[in-house]
Amino acid sequence: MSRRGWAIGVDFGGTNIKAGLVSRGGEVIVSRVLSSNAYGSPSRFVEGVRDIAASLARETSLRISQLDGVGVGVPGLIDAQRGTVRMLVNVPGWRDVPLQRRLERAMGVRCIVDNDANAVTLGECRFGAGRGSRQLIGVTLGTGVGGGLVLSGTVYRGAFGSAGELGHTVIVDGGERCRCGSRGCLEAYVGTAAILRLTRAALRRSRGALRPLAAQAHGRLTPALVSEAARRGDAAAKRVWQEVGRRLGIGLSSAVNLLNPDRIVIGGGIANAWAFFAPALRRALARQALPAAVQRVRVVRARLGNHAGVVGAAVLVWSERR
Amino acid sequence: MSRRGWAIGVDFGGTNIKAGLVSRGGEVIVSRVLSSNAYGSPSRFVEGVRDIAASLARETSLRISQLDGVGVGVPGLIDAQRGTVRMLVNVPGWRDVPLQRRLERAMGVRCIVDNDANAVTLGECRFGAGRGSRQLIGVTLGTGVGGGLVLSGTVYRGAFGSAGELGHTVIVDGGERCRCGSRGCLEAYVGTAAILRLTRAALRRSRGALRPLAAQAHGRLTPALVSEAARRGDAAAKRVWQEVGRRLGIGLSSAVNLLNPDRIVIGGGIANAWAFFAPALRRALARQALPAAVQRVRVVRARLGNHAGVVGAAVLVWSERR
Repeated sequence: MSRRGWAIGVDFGGTNIKAGLVSRGGEVIVSRVLSSNAYGSPSRFVEGVRDIAASLARETSLRISQLDGVGVGVPGLIDAQRGTVRMLVNVPGWRDVPLQRRLERAMGVRCIVDNDANAVTLGECRFGAGRGSRQLIGVTLGTGVGGGLVLSGTVYRGAFGSAGELGHTVIVDGGERCRCGSRGCLEAYVGTAAILRLTRAALRRSRGALRPLAAQAHGRLTPALVSEAARRGDAAAKRVWQEVGRRLGIGLSSAVNLLNPDRIVIGGGIANAWAFFAPALRRALARQALPAAVQRVRVVRARLGNHAGVVGAAVLVWSERR
Repeated sequence: MSRRGWAIGVDFGGTNIKAGLVSRGGEVIVSRVLSSNAYGSPSRFVEGVRDIAASLARETSLRISQLDGVGVGVPGLIDAQRGTVRMLVNVPGWRDVPLQRRLERAMGVRCIVDNDANAVTLGECRFGAGRGSRQLIGVTLGTGVGGGLVLSGTVYRGAFGSAGELGHTVIVDGGERCRCGSRGCLEAYVGTAAILRLTRAALRRSRGALRPLAAQAHGRLTPALVSEAARRGDAAAKRVWQEVGRRLGIGLSSAVNLLNPDRIVIGGGIANAWAFFAPALRRALARQALPAAVQRVRVVRARLGNHAGVVGAAVLVWSERR
């Protein structure tokens, strides 16, 4: 295998920093995981990326200068043109950090910085479930609901870098309070907290596996537990996922009517329950969205799994002109 | 004034076909209006456009071949790449009509066909209230709620030409029935019918000008009548417009979070009530949308007024590569 055209992708998550050497074919050659705690400040993060890159290069007998570059996805608001981190969500101490310049100075190689959801969506578009799509909506389901857009083959960032915030699509005017401070956002209806609220209500109706599983877990409910109950045939647990799917379909219908995508790729931890919520999602979307907008859209599960952030960050290097 | 670079714009509306000769500076030099009734079929429409173009050219001592081209905005679903009308909304007999080819054959000049809301938004972007914007959302308020997107300076059509359908953004999951057949769409809350519903409820509370104005009109309520009552200080009428503005702000917040535009241009007949609904719209948008997405967006009233469709259609000629 030729090593020309390899890049390093770095995914700065809330818990871990994942990094990997990625081939031009989208394969992760070697990877590393660090704890985010130790690298939370901009200076420490730059050092961490430099060390991890050096270690990945060493392991493959490469010099960093032989790489196409280093792409970094971070959970926050980015000025992609300048490679500046305007702010990070849930990580203090990051305000207008010229991360790209600092990384390039530390490593002497081309670096690209972008929002992590954008990177993931780009990765899926190039090497995952979005391959061949021209107008792609990427959705990440987890604690919150993230989103990214790849329109006409490139990441769409909007006027000031904040585009793609699908999780804060309104589905109920004046509805549930959302983490963002507003009301009625999709995230307030399908984020992990909302799924667990639905589950607590379902628990009362459950006549199947949900009750014993919950008892076994000492009442510590998780989305995985609800999936397990659904897998074992618990009707109340199945209805939780159907309702999650329906709500997702309602929220996505607004984005579909506005953007008329050809594909929607859904990933993140909650996508593990795909089989349980996808049919209801597709039904709700087909019923709610305009026929012209929805009839040819394919709703598919993300394929890159745990590697999505790393691969997507590497793809940034190959996608961005400077 | 030089005549080089002039184009004809044609706006195919439900009632009228408007056409005008437009200068490269966006000025309408001469214009014509025909009744849509007589030109409803594809063949008659092509003849109508040919005749109107000939007449506009004659009046300015031009030959059609001296024009840059003819742009046509139609109310329906367009395959812009091929210039084919897939279908028209509310006009039967239009299914997969290769309108661009037929117009070019009839007139011997370059023709461009697009959705009318796209044309209007493009016109505002080039010559109206959207000047200087890179990421623009155009909204047309009337019987229904239309929308168009100009992203990175060009019309965004989506994968199959139906993008921009802002009116069918959900604001209430399972809410009011919409003309599109779904429930809870923005249009079902701020379209003319919804405004009149709000007005009928307000009439009962009104202690000002709304009641006598409604009586004078023999109960035939119109948005213009509600504006007049608001202008005369009727508090109930003012609250109708405040509620319309608030709902618009909620609906637009989803689009703003998704697209992070730098400007929103609002036109259409209902925009005549701008002074009465704009403050509530801006407040609701600022409260509902994410700060990063909304803080630098300007919400402004459209400027091209009655000419928007004609100017926008002409701009199509100068914007599209073939």
